[in-house]
Amino acid sequence: METVLNALKRKLSDEQITTNQTVRELHSRDETYHQTSLPDVVVYPKSTKDVSHIMEVAQEFKIPITPFGVGTSLEGHVIPYQHGISIDFSLMNKIIEIKESDLLVTVQPGVTREQLNKELKKYGLFFSVDPGANATIGGMAATNASGTTTVKYGVMRDQVRDIEVVLADGSVIHTGSLAAKSASGYHLNGLFVGSEGTLGCFTEITLQVYGIPEHMVAARATFPSFTHAIDAVTSIIHAGVPIARVEFVDEASMIQINKFSETDYPVEPTLFLEFHGNEAGLQADVDFTKEIMKDNKCQEFIFETDTAARNHLWHARHNLAYAYVHDYVGKKMMLTDVAVPISELANAVTFARKELDKLGIPGGLVGHVGDGNFHSLIMIDMANTEEVQKAKEFNEKIVLYALQRGGTCTGEHGVGVGKKQYQQLEHGTALGVMKQIKKVLDPNNILNPNKIIDIE
Amino acid sequence: METVLNALKRKLSDEQITTNQTVRELHSRDETYHQTSLPDVVVYPKSTKDVSHIMEVAQEFKIPITPFGVGTSLEGHVIPYQHGISIDFSLMNKIIEIKESDLLVTVQPGVTREQLNKELKKYGLFFSVDPGANATIGGMAATNASGTTTVKYGVMRDQVRDIEVVLADGSVIHTGSLAAKSASGYHLNGLFVGSEGTLGCFTEITLQVYGIPEHMVAARATFPSFTHAIDAVTSIIHAGVPIARVEFVDEASMIQINKFSETDYPVEPTLFLEFHGNEAGLQADVDFTKEIMKDNKCQEFIFETDTAARNHLWHARHNLAYAYVHDYVGKKMMLTDVAVPISELANAVTFARKELDKLGIPGGLVGHVGDGNFHSLIMIDMANTEEVQKAKEFNEKIVLYALQRGGTCTGEHGVGVGKKQYQQLEHGTALGVMKQIKKVLDPNNILNPNKIIDIE
Ligand SMILES: Cc1cc2nc3c(=O)[nH]c(=O)nc-3n(C[C@H](O)[C@H](O)[C@H](O)COP(=O)(O)OP(=O)(O)OC[C@H]3O[C@@H](n4cnc5c(N)ncnc54)[C@H](O)[C@@H]3O)c2cc1C
Ligand SMILES: Cc1cc2nc3c(=O)[nH]c(=O)nc-3n(C[C@H](O)[C@H](O)[C@H](O)COP(=O)(O)OP(=O)(O)OC[C@H]3O[C@@H](n4cnc5c(N)ncnc54)[C@H](O)[C@@H]3O)c2cc1C
Repeated sequence: METVLNALKRKLSDEQITTNQTVRELHSRDETYHQTSLPDVVVYPKSTKDVSHIMEVAQEFKIPITPFGVGTSLEGHVIPYQHGISIDFSLMNKIIEIKESDLLVTVQPGVTREQLNKELKKYGLFFSVDPGANATIGGMAATNASGTTTVKYGVMRDQVRDIEVVLADGSVIHTGSLAAKSASGYHLNGLFVGSEGTLGCFTEITLQVYGIPEHMVAARATFPSFTHAIDAVTSIIHAGVPIARVEFVDEASMIQINKFSETDYPVEPTLFLEFHGNEAGLQADVDFTKEIMKDNKCQEFIFETDTAARNHLWHARHNLAYAYVHDYVGKKMMLTDVAVPISELANAVTFARKELDKLGIPGGLVGHVGDGNFHSLIMIDMANTEEVQKAKEFNEKIVLYALQRGGTCTGEHGVGVGKKQYQQLEHGTALGVMKQIKKVLDPNNILNPNKIIDIE
Repeated sequence: METVLNALKRKLSDEQITTNQTVRELHSRDETYHQTSLPDVVVYPKSTKDVSHIMEVAQEFKIPITPFGVGTSLEGHVIPYQHGISIDFSLMNKIIEIKESDLLVTVQPGVTREQLNKELKKYGLFFSVDPGANATIGGMAATNASGTTTVKYGVMRDQVRDIEVVLADGSVIHTGSLAAKSASGYHLNGLFVGSEGTLGCFTEITLQVYGIPEHMVAARATFPSFTHAIDAVTSIIHAGVPIARVEFVDEASMIQINKFSETDYPVEPTLFLEFHGNEAGLQADVDFTKEIMKDNKCQEFIFETDTAARNHLWHARHNLAYAYVHDYVGKKMMLTDVAVPISELANAVTFARKELDKLGIPGGLVGHVGDGNFHSLIMIDMANTEEVQKAKEFNEKIVLYALQRGGTCTGEHGVGVGKKQYQQLEHGTALGVMKQIKKVLDPNNILNPNKIIDIE
């Protein structure tokens, strides 16, 4: 290790390199049930050049690197199971340029989504992707994150115009251009987004952003059963209502929201909804949606009329996972994350609900249901090996259910180590193609090794 | 060749294989200025198995294959410069399944977009991507085609959920799933869409489709100069109007439209517009857009109120390139196809206009301007080598202008051979990554060789 540290020091300053135990521990875990593992050293690059240098050192000594945003990923993505160098991007947190007249922004990877939106607001703009954590843009691009507004604005991959990537050999590429569309060359933007640090390190990201909508209306709708709520969502999607957000929250999760966010929302299966647009069109969408809700036995449809109440609603939704964590001190969370074709959603949620009831581990169901994506969030006692085992089996049942219906084992959280065992089943022979790509771009398997795919 | 034919015959019937001169000629060219070149044999697979067999034979004898849809691509994509086997997908033209309740459709690659939309209409659905030719879904996926509605619905890549691909060794993969979003594995959908037959043959494609909008309003707006028209478009995009179509057509092209489509539209710089949505919202969008138009000195804003007039408008727009071809018998067309960031559009079009005026070759400017994408369409006398040379230089000037401003050399037509010489300049070191991917997936370089990238 001494020689590696000396090599790193050739171009990095002392305060950019640490082997401090506490810092290493902070880079040894995520917020979930996954096993921890320490990096040997944590480095803090300040520039693309720094990252190239780190990569060259890693290559020289054939030791693994693991990129680290803020470590909110949920499938063991950032845990360096083979130790080596954890690259923490927190010092690369500058918003490089806001190209207002192109609706584009270029950022360093360590910029967080809240930091970005705070700055964009000054220009009347916003960045749409909103995972329930204040994640970094680098981490979000590397996991193809999505969130509550994806049903209207798309996933992370849809927002990325260009990424500056440092490859395994330290060389630097750009994956795209500033044009809104292109048919030039292979689509490297798409390939690198979602690659979870296994193909390269992102050092600059150019994203498309949007004008803050003229009008926004948020609402809560409660239902006598979760199946009524899900059927309502399916009908909204079928009808093509251009809804901006439609989130499902079950009773158990409503209790958590009320406790943590000091709300007194009714404890019923609930949809959190939002509409964006011009005033007249939006009103027509709301009226039409209310009809659909009524047809599905909606009990109450409550508007959050003022901005404060609207913000509070989404704040509460975003903090839901933290609400569980807060309530179950000492336990670790596990989230299932399948997405299924919309016609399969109601049955898939029913299946998950039944399995959750059988399980006897505290948790609830929530989801970006407009995309056919939902989570069961459960809180596990890690000291209880039987419980851990049962939780894993539960996760697997839900994954298999989704895969059998043309779905995916992970709608948004990514593969990391937690979903690796389902890659063969989901992708079949295509996994071979992914392996070939990984091998040719990272011949020594030093980039976040054995995440997504095992390389022999 | 005899041995190749015999090998093909092991699993294909006689009428699936032809060396007929006329048929080979039909597979030796596209509709543009690119040099022709004959395939040795044309084969007509009827199934994925047939395609696998063809691929195995090609691999065995190390001869190139060139997939062929209907040959409307514009950059020499389908021309087999190294001869070998042209794979014509016209017999694989079945719509396999319309999953109405998932807004999904699965088709064979030879299905054309008009065939698909005719069928979807019965279900109140439509497929959004509409190049100005009745292209096949396989060809459109292979070129990442787009069209007039891309400004609202996105490019071909955005519609593709899954592709069944036969790889160079004859093995079969699926690139995606039926879920609306996924963070599982590398994004092979994105990589294969736009790969122009250089990474594999598509044998089945699953696409998302949309409900036919409740209300649609089409209009034409004329302007005193093309810069006013383009400025109006820029303002629409900045304002975030959810416009469904916004097409620019210059005076020269309006003349062609009137001649070919028997219209009497004013011969002025014109925008063809369309709005989709609910009645109230759409009216507000139209009113707002009219304000923007007025601010940009719009002379006339004419609605196409009835369905027939609306259809005629878009039919006329779609047939514009054919109008030129029809008018200039014996000449060949060349289309520039850059896309630039929206703030650069007005200057880029001005630049193209000036260069076109200097050129002295008949042509006009048109474009999917909402995406920053526009074409200069010129008609070349191929017997006049000086003219051909000047045309190529003109194309190059426009490409370089766009690349210098963060744009792309091809917004939608693809690379083929015509844009190959700009790949290094546009992608820089990233071209190396593309080459690595090509080499590992097609080690003998038999898949549409030397399109997009030259492999040594
Ligand atoms: C409470 C909570 C709610 C959440 N809700 C959602 C949600 O709604 N939707 C959703 O999609 N996710 C959600 N997540 C998961 C998580 O927020 C996302 O995966 C997010 O994208 C991770 O960002 P991060 O900055 O924390 O990245 P990290 O966790 O630090 O890293 C994630 C991955 O990206 C890689 N990486 C990080 N930076 C770079 C870089 N610069 N270059 C290359 N690779 C890099 C890492 O190696 C790792 O593989 C939630 C998590 C929590 C804790
Ligand atoms: C008048 C006119 C207007 C046009 N307007 C537009 C427009 O607005 N937007 C636009 O994007 N394009 C436009 N084009 C270009 C063209 O229509 C598109 O490129 C279209 O996608 C080509 O489809 P095709 O079926 O003709 O494919 P082909 O030309 O037959 O093939 C195109 C490419 O795809 C490959 N390919 C075909 N089938 C398969 C398969 N099954 N598997 C793998 N590879 C395959 C071929 O090898 C080739 O590289 C226009 C063309 C014309 C003539």
